[in-house]
Amino acid sequence: MINMYNSGLSIVRYLAKSNIIVQGRYASQALPQLSSEKYDVKRKNFGTVQAADINYFKSILSEQRVVTDESDVLPFNIDWIKNCRGQSKVVLKPKTTEEVSKILAYCNEKRLAVCPQGGNTGLVGGSVPVFDEIVLSFMLMNKIISLDEISGALVCEAGCILENVDNYVRNHNLIMPLDLGAKGTCHVGGNVSTNAGGLRLLRYGNLHGSLLGIEAVKADGTVIDCLRSLKKDNTGYHLKHLFVGSEGTLGIVTKLAIHCPVLPKAVTVGFFGLENFDNVLKLFKSAKSSLGEILSAYEMMDNESIRGTLRNMKLTSPIPEYPFYVLMETHGSDADHDTEKVNRFLSKEMDTGLILNGTVATEPGKIQAIWKIRESIPAACMMDGYVFCYDVSLPLANYYQLVPMLRERLGSNASVIGFGHIGDGNIHINVTISDFDKEVLGVLEPFIFEEVSKLQGSVSAEHGIGFRKPQYIHYSKDRSALGLMRDLKTLMDPNGILNPYKVLPDDV
Amino acid sequence: MINMYNSGLSIVRYLAKSNIIVQGRYASQALPQLSSEKYDVKRKNFGTVQAADINYFKSILSEQRVVTDESDVLPFNIDWIKNCRGQSKVVLKPKTTEEVSKILAYCNEKRLAVCPQGGNTGLVGGSVPVFDEIVLSFMLMNKIISLDEISGALVCEAGCILENVDNYVRNHNLIMPLDLGAKGTCHVGGNVSTNAGGLRLLRYGNLHGSLLGIEAVKADGTVIDCLRSLKKDNTGYHLKHLFVGSEGTLGIVTKLAIHCPVLPKAVTVGFFGLENFDNVLKLFKSAKSSLGEILSAYEMMDNESIRGTLRNMKLTSPIPEYPFYVLMETHGSDADHDTEKVNRFLSKEMDTGLILNGTVATEPGKIQAIWKIRESIPAACMMDGYVFCYDVSLPLANYYQLVPMLRERLGSNASVIGFGHIGDGNIHINVTISDFDKEVLGVLEPFIFEEVSKLQGSVSAEHGIGFRKPQYIHYSKDRSALGLMRDLKTLMDPNGILNPYKVLPDDV
Repeated sequence: MINMYNSGLSIVRYLAKSNIIVQGRYASQALPQLSSEKYDVKRKNFGTVQAADINYFKSILSEQRVVTDESDVLPFNIDWIKNCRGQSKVVLKPKTTEEVSKILAYCNEKRLAVCPQGGNTGLVGGSVPVFDEIVLSFMLMNKIISLDEISGALVCEAGCILENVDNYVRNHNLIMPLDLGAKGTCHVGGNVSTNAGGLRLLRYGNLHGSLLGIEAVKADGTVIDCLRSLKKDNTGYHLKHLFVGSEGTLGIVTKLAIHCPVLPKAVTVGFFGLENFDNVLKLFKSAKSSLGEILSAYEMMDNESIRGTLRNMKLTSPIPEYPFYVLMETHGSDADHDTEKVNRFLSKEMDTGLILNGTVATEPGKIQAIWKIRESIPAACMMDGYVFCYDVSLPLANYYQLVPMLRERLGSNASVIGFGHIGDGNIHINVTISDFDKEVLGVLEPFIFEEVSKLQGSVSAEHGIGFRKPQYIHYSKDRSALGLMRDLKTLMDPNGILNPYKVLPDDV
Repeated sequence: MINMYNSGLSIVRYLAKSNIIVQGRYASQALPQLSSEKYDVKRKNFGTVQAADINYFKSILSEQRVVTDESDVLPFNIDWIKNCRGQSKVVLKPKTTEEVSKILAYCNEKRLAVCPQGGNTGLVGGSVPVFDEIVLSFMLMNKIISLDEISGALVCEAGCILENVDNYVRNHNLIMPLDLGAKGTCHVGGNVSTNAGGLRLLRYGNLHGSLLGIEAVKADGTVIDCLRSLKKDNTGYHLKHLFVGSEGTLGIVTKLAIHCPVLPKAVTVGFFGLENFDNVLKLFKSAKSSLGEILSAYEMMDNESIRGTLRNMKLTSPIPEYPFYVLMETHGSDADHDTEKVNRFLSKEMDTGLILNGTVATEPGKIQAIWKIRESIPAACMMDGYVFCYDVSLPLANYYQLVPMLRERLGSNASVIGFGHIGDGNIHINVTISDFDKEVLGVLEPFIFEEVSKLQGSVSAEHGIGFRKPQYIHYSKDRSALGLMRDLKTLMDPNGILNPYKVLPDDV
């Protein structure tokens, strides 16, 4: 089951990034098994939705925004990668914070569990119910409230789709500070609730830094209004961060203010071949120093990643075969300056021998062709058999060491590849075998998580914990931290109605 | 009293930034009045330190690190601007997190109040005791633990002085992501606890974005270990942010991991004259677009600020007199490119008429001379009489509007100037009169705070709340937010021993 999840994940990431339909083993699968059965979860002691409850919700929201028809509710019960299926009987579609507040106050009093849902693009089952939790969909809270073109402060409702907001601010010469494969579907409220990282983190930083303000509703219906759009505000506790990355378990984000950087005028992409991983790190250090402020991505791929991708996806590399590859991107305000910097960097590092061969692209078509190789890796793996995928953060010095370790551990039965965002310390490790094999799973897990833990890494770099990973959280959080998490949950949501069965392990 | 505080603040900022000794009215003042008398505060129901307690502390820390001699304790009782004076009888100097943990566990059990103290450079009385709180000084927890030169992740103890850490990382081609006037004295643990902003925020973002990990001790002695140095880690609640900006009232920071950006190779400074404030904003928008990734500071000053500064400090402006001035700085990786960008920007905006006159400096001496004008403003005000200073954040569209409002309100009796960090929405408003006048104070306050509140601004942009501002916090935080603050305080520190009389107003 873990494998299915993992494999599905690769497909979705690929689909989302490249808009290519892969005819894979899960494309035509039947309705997923119920999460409660598949993962053997016991329902907690919540109330059950009654006709009177439905009537109450209708009195707040109107008839149309209380969905109870089984087939209409179904899509809200199944996650994007078709790994989880809940049993909710009702979806509520509030349009205002006041409505969200009323719904939660009522549910809290009646002990009715609630599952907040944005674009439902999460990869760890956090956005769908497990049992009969009421789904609170934010699809109708999708208004952009204001944009300060000078400061770059955007204020909008939680249900805005990331791509729509990005298009909106691009018309004002700004961009959203985050970019994800799922941008056409995911909601900005979900991005904040899951602390989405994405492709631009190296350049524009994380959401804790970009988020200016938040409005959120506590389990008891209290609206926490921290919706200022100021860059500096040291008046008391910085409450908004409680709602970033807590996956809807401490409160529900209804509005947010975020800082949008200026739209870059020039984009450059380089693709380089290198001798070994040590040189990949040395080159990263040099790129940071030479390109500093314009460096927007620094991705690494081992030869095994690229070789299989070129073969399976029928792509051509702009350079011959090397043990390691780097894809480097810049975002800047002056095309001539950026090209000059990148060419100078390439020329210098070819002289030093760090780069064995390389190409630099500035035309959109060529840029896209290079990115396509990088983005096709997950889907290319799928074509070779069954894939176990891991998405972990590691200190840079140890970034690649799990790959040779796993190769040695698994021998010739498996193909192990490593690729990822070096700039963010985030590596994807894919292990491909011909067919699913429980023994291989036993060799991989918990070994990988234990190694990540020893190296002070993170067992979930960006996807979060959700429903699928609470049992692994202790590999990255010690008892003191887990204890404080539990205390915060009890404080903010004493009846535990907000997104139950998620994030917190039961034994904390 | 507010005025004395305000005036002192100006001197200190100036002293810290320029290293010039100002012979002002407070330079030779006697011991400050006790805070408890000055501000009429009642001691809360804490225990009183007994001989047995001292013996216990000595058993943990050794004799030398338990300071009880009155004259040795005195400097720890008085804040930097000599506005507050506490009555502590004992200063403890732990060297390890374990010692901090033991001290807090003991104090929590005995209901002994504790005041954590870093470099004691705070401007709102947050770092000194009010009554007989035990001072916990971090001056001996000053070790740099590790630096990952490639990722830029620095791990160090809380008592490291910011400038020392900055010098250390500069030797490795990196800089600290924050810079403050007080850098030679302030501790990085204090920076985190107060969410210090400083001079580089426009370029390098805020501490919530830069901080990678934290180790903190709760009131009951529990060590919360979130000291990972990863850029991406979505495993559960993002606990570290609880300790950022909560001024030592929720827990005490003992170690931290922070991301250090690359040391810029080129610095450029421009100084421009403009016709009106509207053009200052238009020019900012253009600078963000033209200079995007290299813009590191955008400061505005009205003519009244500059005229008085040139006169009182006997400085010369590189350009003639204009209604408004902008000081713009860039940090970049290529001097030629940066100069070309800045010159092109200057030339273009002189053509459009946004810039009436301007100069660009790249030599350190000339850069310093321009910054000196900007940094001398507070001290220059002091020479004209008594100064009321306000440090507020406002939306950019309303950034300057309080200045003409106050001029109209106060008439010819007062000089009102406005200057500050437009890039961060942070304006300093100084009101100078010949001598302190309670009536003028009544005209200024709470008027200013009310106006800031109406405009959704912040009554404390960067200095925090500390001991001096809890009564003003409601102008920037509503009851829901204050209620949640109180709940968090009760959760994390049920006996209220951590930095009492600070941050939280009594009536919440």
